[in-house]
Amino acid sequence: MNIKIFIVANKLEKFILEGLKEYEKRLSRYCKIQFQLFKNEDQLYKRIPNKSYVIKLTTDGNILSSEELSEKINTLGISGKSDIIMLINISQIPVDETITISPMNMDVGIQTLLLFEQIYRAYRIIHNEPYHK
Amino acid sequence: MNIKIFIVANKLEKFILEGLKEYEKRLSRYCKIQFQLFKNEDQLYKRIPNKSYVIKLTTDGNILSSEELSEKINTLGISGKSDIIMLINISQIPVDETITISPMNMDVGIQTLLLFEQIYRAYRIIHNEPYHK
Repeated sequence: MNIKIFIVANKLEKFILEGLKEYEKRLSRYCKIQFQLFKNEDQLYKRIPNKSYVIKLTTDGNILSSEELSEKINTLGISGKSDIIMLINISQIPVDETITISPMNMDVGIQTLLLFEQIYRAYRIIHNEPYHK
Repeated sequence: MNIKIFIVANKLEKFILEGLKEYEKRLSRYCKIQFQLFKNEDQLYKRIPNKSYVIKLTTDGNILSSEELSEKINTLGISGKSDIIMLINISQIPVDETITISPMNMDVGIQTLLLFEQIYRAYRIIHNEPYHK
């Protein structure tokens, strides 16, 4: 699976970038994951390929448990949706689906880090592996 | 206010430590905050001073919004509870109160980082300041 995280943000802090790099490394066994920053929604919207399945992170939906997120990722893979784009800090862009992993307002960088961690946790569950870190 | 975060964890990752340092710096205008790791709950329990007000982070309570967390911190300060200990990754230790900032299972380091960020956000709200980062 090919997961792209598109984020509206000017920049992410250094410790966040280091954390994302660490999770990219851990996730490399399971999927191809990368993130990209955009100045605004318009700029981001133009970069979404037609074939992608687009998921937006929101804070006001039903909160997914780790097990439900893993089930969702697994189902997408099985149904042939292998190009996933996840949007962070977006309000207007039309999407295929929204997911909520936390109801809290939080810093965009920490949101991104948490999403990477939850995706990692999801793949560990899919592969029936213990979650050590 | 003097906030100590006591965590049961062998170690935290480097990018987490850097993030915590960053938030310690930002929070230094508002409170004294520090964290300490413990190998297990027994060792941690022995280090809780009698006069402290002890709050445990759980994932199964009612989720506090940023506004509610700021209200809580403000009320504790006003009522003279100025030595706060917050516990992460704890199950047995008796506490004065539990709070939930997220229902998700997540890495202990990311939990700690998120707690620091939410405390920072709470103080920004208390002081009626915009939250830039």
